[in-house]
Amino acid sequence: MATVRLLSDDELSPESQEVFADIRLTRGSDFVNNFWRALAHDPVTLKRTWEGIKAVMGPGALDPKVKEMIYIAVSVAHGCPYCIHSHTAGARGKGMTDAEYAELIAVIGMASETNRLVTALGVPIDEAFDVQ
Amino acid sequence: MATVRLLSDDELSPESQEVFADIRLTRGSDFVNNFWRALAHDPVTLKRTWEGIKAVMGPGALDPKVKEMIYIAVSVAHGCPYCIHSHTAGARGKGMTDAEYAELIAVIGMASETNRLVTALGVPIDEAFDVQ
Amino acid sequence: MATVRLLSDDELSPESQEVFADIRLTRGSDFVNNFWRALAHDPVTLKRTWEGIKAVMGPGALDPKVKEMIYIAVSVAHGCPYCIHSHTAGARGKGMTDAEYAELIAVIGMASETNRLVTALGVPIDEAFDVQ
Amino acid sequence: MATVRLLSDDELSPESQEVFADIRLTRGSDFVNNFWRALAHDPVTLKRTWEGIKAVMGPGALDPKVKEMIYIAVSVAHGCPYCIHSHTAGARGKGMTDAEYAELIAVIGMASETNRLVTALGVPIDEAFDVQ
Amino acid sequence: MATVRLLSDDELSPESQEVFADIRLTRGSDFVNNFWRALAHDPVTLKRTWEGIKAVMGPGALDPKVKEMIYIAVSVAHGCPYCIHSHTAGARGKGMTDAEYAELIAVIGMASETNRLVTALGVPIDEAFDVQ
Amino acid sequence: MATVRLLSDDELSPESQEVFADIRLTRGSDFVNNFWRALAHDPVTLKRTWEGIKAVMGPGALDPKVKEMIYIAVSVAHGCPYCIHSHTAGARGKGMTDAEYAELIAVIGMASETNRLVTALGVPIDEAFDVQ
Repeated sequence: MATVRLLSDDELSPESQEVFADIRLTRGSDFVNNFWRALAHDPVTLKRTWEGIKAVMGPGALDPKVKEMIYIAVSVAHGCPYCIHSHTAGARGKGMTDAEYAELIAVIGMASETNRLVTALGVPIDEAFDVQ
Repeated sequence: MATVRLLSDDELSPESQEVFADIRLTRGSDFVNNFWRALAHDPVTLKRTWEGIKAVMGPGALDPKVKEMIYIAVSVAHGCPYCIHSHTAGARGKGMTDAEYAELIAVIGMASETNRLVTALGVPIDEAFDVQ
Repeated sequence: MATVRLLSDDELSPESQEVFADIRLTRGSDFVNNFWRALAHDPVTLKRTWEGIKAVMGPGALDPKVKEMIYIAVSVAHGCPYCIHSHTAGARGKGMTDAEYAELIAVIGMASETNRLVTALGVPIDEAFDVQ
Repeated sequence: MATVRLLSDDELSPESQEVFADIRLTRGSDFVNNFWRALAHDPVTLKRTWEGIKAVMGPGALDPKVKEMIYIAVSVAHGCPYCIHSHTAGARGKGMTDAEYAELIAVIGMASETNRLVTALGVPIDEAFDVQ
Repeated sequence: MATVRLLSDDELSPESQEVFADIRLTRGSDFVNNFWRALAHDPVTLKRTWEGIKAVMGPGALDPKVKEMIYIAVSVAHGCPYCIHSHTAGARGKGMTDAEYAELIAVIGMASETNRLVTALGVPIDEAFDVQ
Repeated sequence: MATVRLLSDDELSPESQEVFADIRLTRGSDFVNNFWRALAHDPVTLKRTWEGIKAVMGPGALDPKVKEMIYIAVSVAHGCPYCIHSHTAGARGKGMTDAEYAELIAVIGMASETNRLVTALGVPIDEAFDVQ
């Protein structure tokens, strides 16, 4: 199921071809996953999204593996199975161990539970947590 | 605003007093934030939740600071301002730097954008991402 | 804060006045809460929404108190503080005890946790749960 | 699709075997659904989650059938198809009639609509709904 | 997968038959999609929902095509693949061009990103945006 | 409440000053709303986000007013009061009439209701809605 056709390499516009080439170069792999093939109908959003991903997910103050785990957490809370599958694979590819994965899952579950408890109870924010 | 009254220390049942004592001991601080004061009406859920938090958020394969950042990510995606405020304070207390915080925010934003792009496009999961 | 002004009784259109009269009659109370005062700018949606609420929330196969608790559960998962406050008041008004409320909160928390665990793990639906 | 392999009975660690045995004993059935088979990679979270479910979903102030219906409501609002399927089966197993199910669905739909209307309009919480 | 059986035309109650007839008449097509076949178990909710859709989605101040695009936006943010597929087909049927679709997707993605950035940062609402 | 301090004009880094200047130039107004003042702690994300907004929200195949309404729809479904307030003001500033606003609200409400009905019922996607 999909709402747009996934584009094969030989259906890409020149602008999308360029982005695909950069994805392959950056990742050091010929594999381009379905997300980019769906997004390739619109080269402008394709390029902006890829540039964003490249800027945000690369090395920085945080370990790229940790970034993938944060990505998983957000994707779970948003209910995006594709994103969960692709970033779980990504985190594993960047070295996430089984023990780290188990803790990630446990934190996501615990946060989900307390998020909703807090919301149900309408808990007012403690002054100690405010920065202003 | 709240849907239950926040309990002060002298309104606690003996069971809730015990949990509060353990919160104070574990954290090495007299401060008990509003979440626990709202939850304290039900000592059973209070105790179960606190035991869960203690088990999940302590040291393990993942750095407690990273766990707080994952907690923030989930809380943002669930839209829980109280949780965001308390765990942002928690992450800072465990050493999250401004640079790390900026990257956390950027990853959350980027994940949110691609989560919804993927969902809108109905992208099918690549076989490469499946474990079975 | 609001994105529309709340209408007082003497600012209502005749169509909205009629709906407000039915709210008062049905509830046996002069109090009309802010939701209806915000919605009253659009008498068509006001009327359709009120008719829906009246049809759905009245007595039927389920106890009205149980319906209010289901309403709270949905409102918590959607993150709507106004709805949580108004339907928690509603459930209490219909006889929800402190013990029932504590269990409601506990179920909401537990469901939230397992919902996200399931989603994170991408658990496939057991054939036993399918009706077709 | 799944992000972890589902474990069969003969792949379980001794700790997970123990939890599975308790699931079977508590439910009086040999069937253990996929959620637990996915979670079984991490015996600690498996055990904590099962203990939580057992404590929360058993008889108490609320009818177990009503608890399953609340579980469904949360799962729908969180968009968890697995959870919806398993708890709809659970509610039916505990005696939910077609008429009760129809009302549950109607309440979920109505709550979803008014949740978003309220949020769109930014309706401020009436003082009458505040407990403090 | 489904939690209820989809009803074929010859399984409908007389009340549901009447709604199906009106769906066919209003749309000028014999095709009745699965949503209505699932909802048809409860003629009351079927009728109320169809009446609501007919009232809300018809011509008015907004172009029906624009209404379908707003419907898609909501469905994406709620994570409802069925709704996304059906209303994307609906928007295309009402004349949404590829360029309009590309912009719709881009706006949804951008809004999702800034929604979560705002929430993460706990940005207070500017007085300029308040109507009261 | 906020998790970061809002920066005043004289606290901005040179890079953030540049973005603020472009916001003012593009909008033809001296007013810079709180979102940008919170984001300004991280000039990189500030710049990327602003560039994205400028590219996506300007004139194109869709009327900028319609884009603001889509933005509101997403923000409501995500539960972001700040975003709802700012983009409702934005849509009004771009000419959204009261009648258009009323229809927007009605579509958001209706979509939210049917989204959750569909999800509750686990409705399978009709083949007619698939593009592949």
